[in-house]
Amino acid sequence: MQKKPLILVTNDDGITAPGLRALISVMNHLGEVVVVAPDSPQSGMGHAITINSTLQCSQIKLDEGPQKEYSCSGTPADCVKLGINELLYRKPDLCVSGINHGSNSSINVIYSGTMSAAVEAGIEGIPAIGFSLLDFRWAADFEPVMPFVKKITQQALENLIPKGVVLNVNFPVPKEQKIKGIKICRQANAYWVEKFDKRTNPQGKEYYWLTGDFINEDKGEDTDEWALKNGYISIVPTQFDLTAHHSIQQLNTWNF
Amino acid sequence: MQKKPLILVTNDDGITAPGLRALISVMNHLGEVVVVAPDSPQSGMGHAITINSTLQCSQIKLDEGPQKEYSCSGTPADCVKLGINELLYRKPDLCVSGINHGSNSSINVIYSGTMSAAVEAGIEGIPAIGFSLLDFRWAADFEPVMPFVKKITQQALENLIPKGVVLNVNFPVPKEQKIKGIKICRQANAYWVEKFDKRTNPQGKEYYWLTGDFINEDKGEDTDEWALKNGYISIVPTQFDLTAHHSIQQLNTWNF
Repeated sequence: MQKKPLILVTNDDGITAPGLRALISVMNHLGEVVVVAPDSPQSGMGHAITINSTLQCSQIKLDEGPQKEYSCSGTPADCVKLGINELLYRKPDLCVSGINHGSNSSINVIYSGTMSAAVEAGIEGIPAIGFSLLDFRWAADFEPVMPFVKKITQQALENLIPKGVVLNVNFPVPKEQKIKGIKICRQANAYWVEKFDKRTNPQGKEYYWLTGDFINEDKGEDTDEWALKNGYISIVPTQFDLTAHHSIQQLNTWNF
Repeated sequence: MQKKPLILVTNDDGITAPGLRALISVMNHLGEVVVVAPDSPQSGMGHAITINSTLQCSQIKLDEGPQKEYSCSGTPADCVKLGINELLYRKPDLCVSGINHGSNSSINVIYSGTMSAAVEAGIEGIPAIGFSLLDFRWAADFEPVMPFVKKITQQALENLIPKGVVLNVNFPVPKEQKIKGIKICRQANAYWVEKFDKRTNPQGKEYYWLTGDFINEDKGEDTDEWALKNGYISIVPTQFDLTAHHSIQQLNTWNF
């Protein structure tokens, strides 16, 4: 790529999140950066978009660096739509989302605002990557994974991400041992078993907090869960054609 | 199936929506019905879940019929989680969502609250179907499609929906001509080109309304868009394993 790539940066933890700041600082070395991120945390927003209310957006300056930044009232998918169609002067060469505070591996990809932003860019024909670190704390240390964010992004710019595919990158938390490497994986077949924490408010009315346990019964060594548990970075090529092509023949045998 | 199936009914247009009322009346003929639906419209919510705030839920009675009904403050996916894990006395045999006022064909499946509810049930191992009518008006006429809702649901109960698959059913609006039949389809490769309607509020601050045009350049006659345009009901088997399995080999050639 001759000229500097134009990179749209977003996330779902909100524009002040340390994970976003880490991502911006890496991207500033790779291209011209425009940030369009939610003005408040949007975790668990899935692929929500704002159609029944309005969107506000302001240019702001949160820290040093050459990046342009916009804070937006919408969801992560809204931010990408607004960035591409209203705020950027041309179609970006890449969209990166994250670095998320917490995992987006396995079935979490479905609930993830981080990944919905990347997927939205993918739908609009823009190469896109979602990055997540398996540490949901605000004070999570992103420093050790930043060289990998840079390397993966460089490879994506050089090799081109396949059409219709978005990369879902998850980083294990490096502890005593270093990160062992990168594995291209499939999404583990896992799920959440919900537990609702039922409480009573001061007015005597019942309400619930959603909590749950993550259950992975998929023992495959080609899954993202296996890779992360064994000290590897997982990259799952993720698609937005949701058709279960292998089931079409079976459904054609039904008696309509 | 010997005993009466237990059917969880939900939607994204909210518990008072005529499309939901139509779905309940069909399901009352097929099993024991429990409704857990959002207390307000949740269109475009994608697979959002409520993790940073609380959920409220009340049993209510909106119209005649044997169904039990709960109105819930959350998203469609929240309603399904709450229904399965807190409100129902056993795991339901089926979850149906809709009938949505408006299309959920092609890429709309990604943004759809209706389908996210069905997909959530699918993830939790429950056979699930999302139904949508290509008429977004509140006064849409659901009567002509109700026999098809019944037939498709009966077939799903008899034949069993393949594991890991959820059905995305869209109905064309019957006009002069009757509905021609049912086609098992793939999701058309289409997208929205957004247009942001930029306005100024009474305080002089700019805001946006998200609007857009649906662009379908996929001319395949095996797509949902083709079926609907030609007077057929489309059924797309939809999966929540988002892995682009065919891309794994290509990504393994990258130089990490």
